[in-house]
Amino acid sequence: MILQLDPASTIPLYRQIRDQIRQLISTGGLSVGERLPPSRELAQRLGVHRTTVANAYADLTADGWIAGHVGRGTYVAQGVQPPKPVAPPARFSATLENGYLWTTLFADAPAEDPLDFLMGDMAGAADRRVISFTTARPAEELFPVEDFRRATSEVLRREGRTLLQLGPSDGYPPLKEFLRQELGRDAIPATDRELLITNGCQQALDLVRKVFLRPGDVALLENPVYPGAIQTFASGGVKCLGVPVTDKGLNVDVLESLLAQQRVRLLLVTPNFHNPTGTTLSLEARKRVLELAGRHQVPVVEDNIYGALRLRGRELPSLKALDTAGLVVHLNSFSKVCFAGLRVGWLVASEPVIERLRIAKQATDLHTDQLAQAALAEFGRRGFLGRMVKKARALYRARLERLEAALAAHFPEEVTWVRPEGGMSVWVTLPPGLDAGVLLYKARESHVVFTPGRFFYFQAVQPNTLRLSYPGVSEKQIDQGIEILGTLLKSELRQRRSEPVGRRRARVALV
Amino acid sequence: MILQLDPASTIPLYRQIRDQIRQLISTGGLSVGERLPPSRELAQRLGVHRTTVANAYADLTADGWIAGHVGRGTYVAQGVQPPKPVAPPARFSATLENGYLWTTLFADAPAEDPLDFLMGDMAGAADRRVISFTTARPAEELFPVEDFRRATSEVLRREGRTLLQLGPSDGYPPLKEFLRQELGRDAIPATDRELLITNGCQQALDLVRKVFLRPGDVALLENPVYPGAIQTFASGGVKCLGVPVTDKGLNVDVLESLLAQQRVRLLLVTPNFHNPTGTTLSLEARKRVLELAGRHQVPVVEDNIYGALRLRGRELPSLKALDTAGLVVHLNSFSKVCFAGLRVGWLVASEPVIERLRIAKQATDLHTDQLAQAALAEFGRRGFLGRMVKKARALYRARLERLEAALAAHFPEEVTWVRPEGGMSVWVTLPPGLDAGVLLYKARESHVVFTPGRFFYFQAVQPNTLRLSYPGVSEKQIDQGIEILGTLLKSELRQRRSEPVGRRRARVALV
Repeated sequence: MILQLDPASTIPLYRQIRDQIRQLISTGGLSVGERLPPSRELAQRLGVHRTTVANAYADLTADGWIAGHVGRGTYVAQGVQPPKPVAPPARFSATLENGYLWTTLFADAPAEDPLDFLMGDMAGAADRRVISFTTARPAEELFPVEDFRRATSEVLRREGRTLLQLGPSDGYPPLKEFLRQELGRDAIPATDRELLITNGCQQALDLVRKVFLRPGDVALLENPVYPGAIQTFASGGVKCLGVPVTDKGLNVDVLESLLAQQRVRLLLVTPNFHNPTGTTLSLEARKRVLELAGRHQVPVVEDNIYGALRLRGRELPSLKALDTAGLVVHLNSFSKVCFAGLRVGWLVASEPVIERLRIAKQATDLHTDQLAQAALAEFGRRGFLGRMVKKARALYRARLERLEAALAAHFPEEVTWVRPEGGMSVWVTLPPGLDAGVLLYKARESHVVFTPGRFFYFQAVQPNTLRLSYPGVSEKQIDQGIEILGTLLKSELRQRRSEPVGRRRARVALV
Repeated sequence: MILQLDPASTIPLYRQIRDQIRQLISTGGLSVGERLPPSRELAQRLGVHRTTVANAYADLTADGWIAGHVGRGTYVAQGVQPPKPVAPPARFSATLENGYLWTTLFADAPAEDPLDFLMGDMAGAADRRVISFTTARPAEELFPVEDFRRATSEVLRREGRTLLQLGPSDGYPPLKEFLRQELGRDAIPATDRELLITNGCQQALDLVRKVFLRPGDVALLENPVYPGAIQTFASGGVKCLGVPVTDKGLNVDVLESLLAQQRVRLLLVTPNFHNPTGTTLSLEARKRVLELAGRHQVPVVEDNIYGALRLRGRELPSLKALDTAGLVVHLNSFSKVCFAGLRVGWLVASEPVIERLRIAKQATDLHTDQLAQAALAEFGRRGFLGRMVKKARALYRARLERLEAALAAHFPEEVTWVRPEGGMSVWVTLPPGLDAGVLLYKARESHVVFTPGRFFYFQAVQPNTLRLSYPGVSEKQIDQGIEILGTLLKSELRQRRSEPVGRRRARVALV
C-alpha cells in the first residue's frame, strides 16, 4: 500500500493515515485478513511519531476496519464492507430505523472552513502554553469588564422590560443615535434611515450578498481577503473575481481592467489596514476607486472594521466620507475595537439600500440582540468606549513595534513583510518555494501558531505567505514566538540549500 | 382623472392618493397647468376625510409636482418632468455627484413586508390607547427583569472577559448543557454535536434554507404559515408549495399527494399550536408525516417555538421525539416563552446536519451574542425560566378563556374560530365575502387592531380570516376589543344584506 502524508495540511497526520487506510480497504486496495505493518515500523517509514500511527490504528479498530491480536499483529478485519447503498424508499417507510443519506440532501458541497481555524477552535488558542499569532481580535486585558457590567445593569434597570421584548429591525434607537454622532465625527453624516444595526460585519456581508447578488453574478474582492467574505459570497453561488493587493492596497489598475471586462455587480474593498495584508489605500487610489465604480454603476462595499485602529501615519477619509454620489455601503463593527463576543456592527448606505437591507435583516433574524445594543450604547455614551480605543491604540502600537523589531532581529533576510499603518496583523512573505503550512506544522510542535496565507486566497494561492496578528500577544511572547519562527525558517532555508527540490514536497511511504 | 382607493391596504389613504396623482402626472394623465379639484371636493368624492387629501396635496407640493395659489386653486406645476433616464457612464465618472439608480441594482424585487406589521412598526403598538391583538409575543408584565439583571450581572462578574471575546460558533457551552437537560426532559436526547445555538427561530430558518435549498428547489410549507418562513424561503428563489391546514393541523393527505407528485427538498411543519391557525397535529398524523418523509427522503423541519405553551389538553411527543431515523431538524427559541429581545434559539438535528448548519452560521454572523446566551443559561439554571413559563401558561390560559368567552358573546354567529390547545393566537374565519382588511381599517379608527389572515398566505389567500393574539392583552381590553370588533362585524353584515355585492370592494372616484 502507498500512504502519502501532507504535513502542510490542517488535517492531523493520524487522520490522514486513518482515512487513507480506510479508503484502501473500501476500494479493495487492502483485502480482508491482509496484515498491516506494526505501528512502530509504519511510523518509521513515514517519518512520524509512533503514537501518530497508533492513534490511526486505534480509530480503525474502534470502527471495526482492522483488528489486532497479541502475537498475530494487525490485519484488515473480517466482514468489512463498503458502505451500503441507500435502501429503496419502501424500506424507510417500513421501519423508520434508517438514517438519511444527508450528503446528497445538502444544497452545496461542504466548504473548507478557515474560519474555524481563525476563531481558534483548531489553533490551540485555549492552550496557555501556545503563543498564538492567529486571531485578529482585541486584547482581553483591555476589557473594562466592570464598567461594562455597570452599563449593562443600568440599562436593564432603566428599560429592561422594553429591551427584553421584540425590537425594531433597524436597531435600538439610542445606539443608532450614538453611532450617528460618532459617524459625524468621521465625516460620515448619516440620517437615521441611512443606518442599520447588524450582528457584526459578518452579517453585514451576508445581508449585502442577499440584497445585491444573484447566483452567477460577478463580485470583485481583494485577493487575498478576509475568509468570511469568501465564505459568504461563495455560498450564494456568486462568481468571485480577485483584485490583487499590492503594498499599497488593492491594485486599482487591475480593478479598472476588470470593471471594463466584466459586468460586475459589487466591489468589496477594505481601504484601511486591509485584512490580511495590513495595507492602506492612498487618497488618490480611493478617489479613483470611487470614480471607476461610479462610471460603471457598481455598488462599493467598504469594510472599515479596522478603521479606528490607526497606529501611525496620517488619517485618511473613508470611501464613504468621499462618496458624494451615495454609492458606498459602509460596514463597521464593535468587534475589533471593543467586544467581539457581543456581535454588534452597523451599515451606512443610501436610504433605498438601507431599506432593502433592513427587510433582508428582518427575514434573517428579525433584529440584533437588544441587550447588547443597549449596553454598548450606554458604554459608549459614558465615554468608556473612547477610552478603550485610545488604550488599545497605545498597546497595539507598542506590540506592533516590538513585533517588527523581533522580525528584523530573528527572521532570515530573504523574508519580507508589509509595514502596516494600523489594524491587527503583519503580512509576511517567505522566499518563493517555502510553504507557510509546513512552517506551521513545525512551529506548532514548539507551541507557536500563526495563520498560513492560503486561508485568505480564493485564487492564485501564494503558499509562501503568512499572517501574524499581534494584539493578543504580550511583548515577551512576541520575542519568544518570533525567535522560534526565525530559527525554524533559518534551518528550513539551510536544509533547502543542501537538498534537491523534488524531495521536499510531501512525505510518501511505500509500505 | 380616476383615483381608486383600497381601504384594505396597509398603505395609508393619503399616500395612495399622492402616489396615484404623481403617477398620472408622470405618465401624462395630467398635464402641466391642469387644475386639480379642491381638497374638500376630492375628499367628498372619495369618501375620505379632508385632511387625508390635504396631506396628499402637501406632499405633492413639497416635491414640486403641484402648486397652489390663493384664488387660483391647485394645479400641476410647471416643469414637472418624468424621472430622468440614467446618465451615460461618462457622466458619473466626471462628477460623482449623481446617485445610483439603485432599484435595478438589487437582486430581487422588493418583498411585501408583513413582518413590519407583525413586529409592531405599523400596528400602532406604541400607542397606549390601542388595543392590539397583532403580536404573538410574551406578556411584558411577566418579565422578571430584576432576576434577569442579577443573572446578567453574575455572569459578567464571573466570566466577563471570556464572554466579551469571540466565542464558539455552535454556542456558549453552558447554555448548550442547560438546553440538553431540558431537551432530555422532552424525550429529545441530543449530544453536544447535535445542538446548535442560533439567533432565534428566524435565523434557524435562514440557515436551513442556506444548507438545504438551491434556487428552484421545492419546499413544502403549511399554508397559511408564519410570514417569516415565507420571506426566508422565497428570498432564496425556492419554490414554496402550500400544504393546506385543517382544524387538526397540516392536511396529511395533501402532503402525501404532494410528496408523490413533486421532488420535494424540504418540509416545514409546526405540529404544536401552529402559527397562525393554533391547530395541533394528532399523534397519528405526526407518525404519518414522519413515515411519508422517510419514504421520500425529505428532511422535516419542525418548528416547535410554541411547544412549551400548551394551555390545555394532553401533551404530545414532538416529531423529533418520535424521530428514530434522525430525519427531523427541530427548531426552538426563547422568544415566545421568555425574552424575544435577546434573539436566542436552538436547532437539534443529526450530527452531519448540525455540522453543515454550524458552518453556515459561521458564514452568517460567526456566532450568537455571548452575553445573551450566558445570561439565559444562568437565568435557566437558577430556575427563573421554569417559573416564568409556569406563570405564562396560567396567565395565557386565563386570557384565552376570556377571549373565547368574549368571541362567543360579541361576534355574530356566522363567524367561526379554531379552539387552540396552546400557543398565542386564535384564528378566526369570517363569513365568505367579508374582508378582514376592511374590518381592520374600520377597527383601527376605534383603536383596535389585529392581523389580517392574508399576511399568512402565500397561495390561495383567504381574505376572510384573521388572527387574534392575546398574551399581551389584559382581560378588560380583551372584552372591550372583542366587543368593538363584534359591533363592527354585525354592522358590516347588516349593511351587506341591504347592499348589492358589486359596490363594496373598493372606493373609486371619477374626478
